[in-house]
Amino acid sequence: MEVEINYLEEPKLNNPIFVEGLPGVGNVGRIAVSYLIDKLKAKKFAEIKSSYFFPLVMVDSKNKISPISIDLYYYKGKKDIIFVVGDSQPVDYKGYYLLCKKLIEIGLAFNIKEVITTGGFGIGTEKQKPNVLSAMTNPKDLAKLKKAGVHFEKENPIGSIFGVSGLLLSFGKEKGIDGYALLGETMGYPIITDPKAAEEVLKILMKLLEVDVDLKDIDKSVKQLEVFMKTIEDKTKQLMQQFQKSGKGYSEYIE
Amino acid sequence: MEVEINYLEEPKLNNPIFVEGLPGVGNVGRIAVSYLIDKLKAKKFAEIKSSYFFPLVMVDSKNKISPISIDLYYYKGKKDIIFVVGDSQPVDYKGYYLLCKKLIEIGLAFNIKEVITTGGFGIGTEKQKPNVLSAMTNPKDLAKLKKAGVHFEKENPIGSIFGVSGLLLSFGKEKGIDGYALLGETMGYPIITDPKAAEEVLKILMKLLEVDVDLKDIDKSVKQLEVFMKTIEDKTKQLMQQFQKSGKGYSEYIE
Amino acid sequence: MEVEINYLEEPKLNNPIFVEGLPGVGNVGRIAVSYLIDKLKAKKFAEIKSSYFFPLVMVDSKNKISPISIDLYYYKGKKDIIFVVGDSQPVDYKGYYLLCKKLIEIGLAFNIKEVITTGGFGIGTEKQKPNVLSAMTNPKDLAKLKKAGVHFEKENPIGSIFGVSGLLLSFGKEKGIDGYALLGETMGYPIITDPKAAEEVLKILMKLLEVDVDLKDIDKSVKQLEVFMKTIEDKTKQLMQQFQKSGKGYSEYIE
Amino acid sequence: MEVEINYLEEPKLNNPIFVEGLPGVGNVGRIAVSYLIDKLKAKKFAEIKSSYFFPLVMVDSKNKISPISIDLYYYKGKKDIIFVVGDSQPVDYKGYYLLCKKLIEIGLAFNIKEVITTGGFGIGTEKQKPNVLSAMTNPKDLAKLKKAGVHFEKENPIGSIFGVSGLLLSFGKEKGIDGYALLGETMGYPIITDPKAAEEVLKILMKLLEVDVDLKDIDKSVKQLEVFMKTIEDKTKQLMQQFQKSGKGYSEYIE
Repeated sequence: MEVEINYLEEPKLNNPIFVEGLPGVGNVGRIAVSYLIDKLKAKKFAEIKSSYFFPLVMVDSKNKISPISIDLYYYKGKKDIIFVVGDSQPVDYKGYYLLCKKLIEIGLAFNIKEVITTGGFGIGTEKQKPNVLSAMTNPKDLAKLKKAGVHFEKENPIGSIFGVSGLLLSFGKEKGIDGYALLGETMGYPIITDPKAAEEVLKILMKLLEVDVDLKDIDKSVKQLEVFMKTIEDKTKQLMQQFQKSGKGYSEYIE
Repeated sequence: MEVEINYLEEPKLNNPIFVEGLPGVGNVGRIAVSYLIDKLKAKKFAEIKSSYFFPLVMVDSKNKISPISIDLYYYKGKKDIIFVVGDSQPVDYKGYYLLCKKLIEIGLAFNIKEVITTGGFGIGTEKQKPNVLSAMTNPKDLAKLKKAGVHFEKENPIGSIFGVSGLLLSFGKEKGIDGYALLGETMGYPIITDPKAAEEVLKILMKLLEVDVDLKDIDKSVKQLEVFMKTIEDKTKQLMQQFQKSGKGYSEYIE
Repeated sequence: MEVEINYLEEPKLNNPIFVEGLPGVGNVGRIAVSYLIDKLKAKKFAEIKSSYFFPLVMVDSKNKISPISIDLYYYKGKKDIIFVVGDSQPVDYKGYYLLCKKLIEIGLAFNIKEVITTGGFGIGTEKQKPNVLSAMTNPKDLAKLKKAGVHFEKENPIGSIFGVSGLLLSFGKEKGIDGYALLGETMGYPIITDPKAAEEVLKILMKLLEVDVDLKDIDKSVKQLEVFMKTIEDKTKQLMQQFQKSGKGYSEYIE
Repeated sequence: MEVEINYLEEPKLNNPIFVEGLPGVGNVGRIAVSYLIDKLKAKKFAEIKSSYFFPLVMVDSKNKISPISIDLYYYKGKKDIIFVVGDSQPVDYKGYYLLCKKLIEIGLAFNIKEVITTGGFGIGTEKQKPNVLSAMTNPKDLAKLKKAGVHFEKENPIGSIFGVSGLLLSFGKEKGIDGYALLGETMGYPIITDPKAAEEVLKILMKLLEVDVDLKDIDKSVKQLEVFMKTIEDKTKQLMQQFQKSGKGYSEYIE
């Protein structure tokens, strides 16, 4: 049970675009993609579980338990889309590789024609109107991205892309599927969600995916997320202290 | 030898309830379940060993060595019960998944009809009479739990459940076995055992399991455990310092 | 190449005793067993390598490189003996399990009749004449150990035994081979080698193994080891700092 | 996909020498070998990828994404050479073993006759003219190394060699291929690149490999690297803080 997928439905899709938005810096990608799923009423069709996720279950306000998962949603429109979202990235290096390999396998089974990953790019300061930067596996996409509003400097300030947003592009490329990352400039703290950066990423996503959603609820959506995140940030600290202790077992020491 | 079970006996049980009480916050679950095993004279029938447990052996006051294990006990009564207790939770993320997978496999082989996990819920303060909270995989159990004395607030304050107490429920659910966690409110420090929280969990467990045990020895039982735990907490700190040093080998550095 | 053994020779041994002395608290076991190997002119017959050892090679004063290994020596005498010594314990939890499993397999192939592990027991203070404590898998050995000079208190102060010295006994027991640990009381710092504790363990080992070696060189032997160890302790600290840095790669951060 | 090689070309080589220069202390080996590759116009013929590398992709100044890899270059000359370079060493202990095993397999397939690894040896101070030290798997190479200018003291100050530069030699030796490390004395901080130490290693490499390159650009080359490295050092710190946080998931704590 390293990485396991469970299909709720097997949709027929026409060369969909694969769009990833997992938690990360400023939660930019997560906010943007979740918002899009919500507004487009995209439909969940598969859940991924893995022993590389954090060993816990979520409890909702109605006392209901559900496992941690990364979920796939589809949307049929002018362009078909598969969205990848979830509560967590893997917990160790190898988990990143296994998850991304699985995700690309899934994408290939649906004949995806492009991979778009989303996230934040930490710049250490706050901007009134953050730029959206990009890096791509194939320079052919440059013109398209510029036209959609992506900001390019003479020298790309992005030195590398960490985690699923990076590996997914590189694994896609290996299988002949090009792609690019859309990264909103943000302060760079993972827990402080950044609605402004997410909004800018959303505007560009809408153009590239040829969808149109109302952006007026994004602040509300982010505010809810912020309260939720503040709580869990506190709890996470506790948790890790506990985990470090409990993981060690209860034992006397001798060689 | 990732996770291995050794049966001492193969009891015939009638759709038993699976009840877990491993170490954790306030050791609430561990105290409650161990106490019940003791008072019900439940019988040990299997031992689980794993390379995901801490690499040490226990030594008793009579100089006898025994390996770390998680043990299964059964009790035949109005309702048959399988208890899961032990000295330690696994030492890493993957170990949690493998252990819980194994436990559910074992449970299925005995046709368990329900999973109950127990533990503490850290609230940061001490209460004269701690509540027992719950989260469940199936809302159908709400009425039964309320009747047994579980406290439900309008909005469940539990955001997630970490470790075996969480995963076991979710893994059971996947196989069609519903379940719930019973979590006693406690200060939230894993080493300070909390007899009051354990007692409250015990009272509810007794109703749900339809057993009746005398609670008068719980303080005594906890006092013994507390002395034991205080010692090993000190030793654990030493141990980890040692481990961090010794694990690094003895070596000069060059690249 | 998880754990691999390379035989230099396959000695014919008559139900040998398996004696382990790897690095640990006060390096008590390592000093005692190395000294015995040296004085008995025991012969190396096998080397164990593992990807669970620290990723480095040793360089001697003559510029020669050799891999880290755990080595097996044999001695034929009144009682045949297999000694297990080396520069390092494994680097993670699972490595301990795999190494000990392998060691017991090797022992069984030579029909070992007993397992003796050696080490230090940290007591936090210095004693003029440290006691040697013990824990065993079978109470039948109590009288023999008492006669050899092992110190037993009313209540065994040893709560658990960490690492190879513990697991080896428990793994042997599982295969029907009884054994015990000999633990010299020592301050409890892993890097400060403790010749006095090692000497006390040696005296008891000599009785149990029915061998007789001159103890006059132990201080000299330890002094050399101490210089060596002080150097590598310093270097180890550097190393770990380096490792933590270099292990992280060189990379810019984004999502 | 533990460790995977992709050949761009399969060169015919005549008993090549295997020369490794991965990142490490002072980046001595990396600078020296990269410089040699550049000046000799050695040709890339294979890329190694691994799930034991850091989970990220590199982005160049032209916005192009490429995966982290360790690359093999060949050079045909008086002596044929295979160079091993890359952006990163593996991220954990086991990764070192697997990578080095794979590298030696590749070397054997090309009938390599010798392994040379390069790196820095931290001495804690700065020297006007750093020595190049060595350790070897076979004493027969001593005279050759002395003649090439390697510095030998009465007692080798190198106690051990960490990482690929050490294991590669020991793995080669196991397969009958001798080799040695060339280690330039350097301050000992991994991030501060040391052009002087690299230059001294280069001078000796040139003699041993019988190649001749102009050393005048090494300072320029290092200066570029230093700017690059300073940036990524800053980013790495951020990254690790992020990783530690994000890896923990977002969760409330309960047992």
